[in-house]
This record gives sequence, structure tokens and C-alpha cells, in this order.
Amino acid sequence: MIERIAILGTGLLGTSVGLALRAAGYRGSISGWNRSAEHAQLARQMGAVDSVVADAMEAARSAQLILLAVPIYATLDFMEKLAPILSPAHLVTDVGSTKRVISETGARLFNTPERAAFLPGHPMAGKERGGAELGDANLFRGAVWLFTDDPNAKRSPQSAALVESWRELVGAMGSKTIDLDPARHDELVAWVSHLPQFTATALSSLLEGEVGAAPELKDVGGRALREMTRLGASPFSMWRDIAYTNTEAVERALMALEQRLAYLRENLRTPVLRDEFEQANKFRKD
Amino acid sequence: MIERIAILGTGLLGTSVGLALRAAGYRGSISGWNRSAEHAQLARQMGAVDSVVADAMEAARSAQLILLAVPIYATLDFMEKLAPILSPAHLVTDVGSTKRVISETGARLFNTPERAAFLPGHPMAGKERGGAELGDANLFRGAVWLFTDDPNAKRSPQSAALVESWRELVGAMGSKTIDLDPARHDELVAWVSHLPQFTATALSSLLEGEVGAAPELKDVGGRALREMTRLGASPFSMWRDIAYTNTEAVERALMALEQRLAYLRENLRTPVLRDEFEQANKFRKD
Repeated sequence: MIERIAILGTGLLGTSVGLALRAAGYRGSISGWNRSAEHAQLARQMGAVDSVVADAMEAARSAQLILLAVPIYATLDFMEKLAPILSPAHLVTDVGSTKRVISETGARLFNTPERAAFLPGHPMAGKERGGAELGDANLFRGAVWLFTDDPNAKRSPQSAALVESWRELVGAMGSKTIDLDPARHDELVAWVSHLPQFTATALSSLLEGEVGAAPELKDVGGRALREMTRLGASPFSMWRDIAYTNTEAVERALMALEQRLAYLRENLRTPVLRDEFEQANKFRKD
Repeated sequence: MIERIAILGTGLLGTSVGLALRAAGYRGSISGWNRSAEHAQLARQMGAVDSVVADAMEAARSAQLILLAVPIYATLDFMEKLAPILSPAHLVTDVGSTKRVISETGARLFNTPERAAFLPGHPMAGKERGGAELGDANLFRGAVWLFTDDPNAKRSPQSAALVESWRELVGAMGSKTIDLDPARHDELVAWVSHLPQFTATALSSLLEGEVGAAPELKDVGGRALREMTRLGASPFSMWRDIAYTNTEAVERALMALEQRLAYLRENLRTPVLRDEFEQANKFRKD
């Protein structure tokens, strides 16, 4: 049913979606736009998009499905610009890491019978570095793809069918879809995604000050240290928008970890330490 | 030069040393003792030791090199029991994760011309779970093996030669050796090994309380969450002794991370967040 797709943003995620769609047997067209035309050309050379377009608005108008694969604030900008020029023959969806602000904007600008549809999405897949060159047809295989759709959306039958069709393509790319309320989404990812990232950032930044001047000492830490600091390589450009659009939930999660570390520190020589290890062991058991 | 080795403790590390010695071409004998005879038999079936002995003292007396591969307090117990029954024809070494207490005990009980030699060692290799069944001939390949030898040791030429011979075998197992002062060792591993472990434990324990009741939500976190909590599976039995014998340095490191997380939390919407990401990126660049 979906035969024309425009991918706006051919970084790691946009390029990977293009490659994964092709691997899943999607035979329609895929046009690609990117702020840096060079990256869009790379995505084309890799086979993620068929054509590179200079005008994102024109590409969106010509497509049925518009995938916004840009940082959160750029996604919000595109939503404002696209809503007035699209029709119920269009579905806009995104891959942003927080969903409350985007879902509110979607409800405000889309999802009436006279307007285009908007389906807020969030594939739980990525790498610690971005860029088209890391695009991977298997990035979404076995991953969870979250949706935070608006239960009050009043869509035309045409755009409702596009929503179903996109959900099927996401499944065909190998992802399991889960539907969540946007606020619950942001609370949940604060714990299972944003807290791990900010912890790795704080730990890496701290250790850079402690042992960064003697790189040979990093080797001493071995696999455990490499693993606990790998996310330290994540780019600020992506995480700034997450910090801004999910501040309260991330603050709560960070505060809870600070308290947990203090509790552990105060109990290094008491039986509480055993309880903490056993509770941690339990988390890894399922 | 070393032709008779006794491995006391055939868990993950003891078994892996036996396998790695064989893989490196060591042709002498290896006897194995373990608190649980069943695990020692498994190590024998795997080819890590040639024979299983019931009496650790007898095995030590018959060997030239005695490797203590047991938790730290068990290592200290063995040192007390072995010192009176061994001679300058013996070298005792260990794999304990903290070195100050063990090195002090070694200087007190060993390393005179009339006594056996003791060389405090610490291979920076392991897995999040223990046990002979995970023994791996390649565990030490590419790893760092730390020594915190006593500069005031007065060894017989015989036991000094055993020390050199053991260092060569460690190199043959694929490890790079680094010599450190014991206090500096414990300070360093508090940062690059113990802090990452206790952070993973606190994070896993916290998340078990937050999302443990809904295991499907763990999948949402994907690779990043799995990686940041993998060490949450580490056994308390091993880490208790580390917490007890390196308390002050671990407390300092934990306190520093708590402060760093609070600093990041208070600056989620300020330019400081960029600085923290850039400093973290730097740690991952070398």
C-alpha cells in the first residue's frame, strides 16, 4: 500500500531504515534529504535511498510516508512546516527519543480527517556514533519499536490505512512494536535508556580527569571498563534535545541513582551490600 | 625452569590459568585443589590440571609455583598456612583484586632468603560469572597482568629465578605485565575496575525495583541497557572481599561519581552538559 517514501535525515537511523526496508522486500520508491547533501549521496550509494532531493518540502509532498529521522527539535520544526502543505494522503512519522513533546505537537497539527496523519515512533536501536556510513539493514532486527499514538486521532480512512501499512513495514524490518502512552514512554526511557547514557557520560568524563592523562591505565580496566564507558562516545548533538525534552524524568532517575550509589557507599562493609548485589543479580536473571 | 605448579582454587581464573599455560606450551605438571572437589574434577576433565588433590598443603609442598586463585580472605588464610611449611624452593603468587593487604601480608610472611617467595599478582581479566565451566585458555590474551612486588624482598637466588620464570609464563599466556606500588594499584583499580562494577550493581539494583516487575520493558533498553547492567550479574562472594580490603578508595570513587551525576543533573539545560559530553568523548578517543 505504501509505495512512495521520503526519508528526511539520512544519518544512522534514516539510512538504516532505507536499507532495512529494501532488505524486507519493500519495492516502492525512497527519496532522501539531508542537511548535508554529502551524507545523502552516501546513503544513495549504499542503496538506502533511490534519489537525493534538495527540497525536503517537495520530497514530502511527493511521498505517501514521510519519515523524520532528525534530532528532536528539527523534527518539531519539520512538523510545523509540513502540516500546512500535506493532505490526508500523507502519513508523517518520526524516530525521536522522547515522545511527549512530539506527540503533543502531532495532536495539535495532524490527525484530523482533513489533515495528514502523524504517528509518533521510536525505534530502540542505535549506535554510539551516528552517520550514514554506519547504516545497517539489520539495525532494527530484534529491537523494540515504540509507538505513542494519539487515541483521539480522527483520521481519514486513507491515512488510517497508511498507519497500518507503516506498522506492517516496521514489523517486516524485524522489530517488535509496543504501544505506550507518551508520558509513560518518556518516564520509561528515562530509566532504561537515558539514565544508562548519562551514567556512562558522567563515568567517562570523571575517569578522563582521573586517568585520561595516562592512557595505558585505561587498558588496566579491561572489558568491564570499555563496556561501562562505550556510551561515553555518544554525541552531545543528539542528547541535548533529549535532556531538554525529558528533563524532569531524567532528573528523577539521576537523583535516584545518586542516592543508590550513596547507599551502597555507606554500606561497603555491612550486609546491605549483599542485598544490593542480590537485587542486581535478579535484574540480570530474566 | 618451573616444572611443578599447584593451582589452589579451580574457579574461573584458576581453570583459565591451567588452560592458558597448556596453550602456551607449558609441559610441567599442574595439580589442582578446590574447596568443592566437583569443580576440581571439572577442571581436570577440561585439561586445566592433570590431577586433583584433596590436601592443598601437600600439593603446595610438592610444587615449585603455588597459584592462589581464591577470594582475597581465602588467599590471606592460605598465606598464613603456607608460609611456615614452604622453603626458598617455592614461589607463591595470587590473583587477588586488591593488593595492599595481600602485599603487606606477603612482606611479613615471605621474601627473606630463608623463606618462600611471594609475588602479588592481579590479572585484569574475568567474566561476570565464575566457575570452572567458563574456564578459557584465551582469557588473559591481550589483558594486563599487574604485579605489586615488594622492592625490599630479599630472596634466595632459587626463588628469585622462580619469580622471573613465572613472569615469563604470564607473558606466554598473552598478558602484558605492569608493575605498580600496592597502594597505587588499589587506588587505580578503585577507579577503573571497582567503580564500574559498583556503578553497574547500583544501576541494576535500582532498575530491578523500577522495571523488574515488567520484564518486557527491559527489552526496550536494548543493547545500551544490557551493556551497562551486564556486570550486575557479578557475584557478591567475590566483591565482598574487595569492598572490605579497598573500602576508602572505593568510597572516594563512588562519592566522586555521585557528585558528577548531581552536576550533570543540575545542568541538563545548560552549556555544562556539552562540556561533560565532550570530556566523555575524549575518554573514548585514545
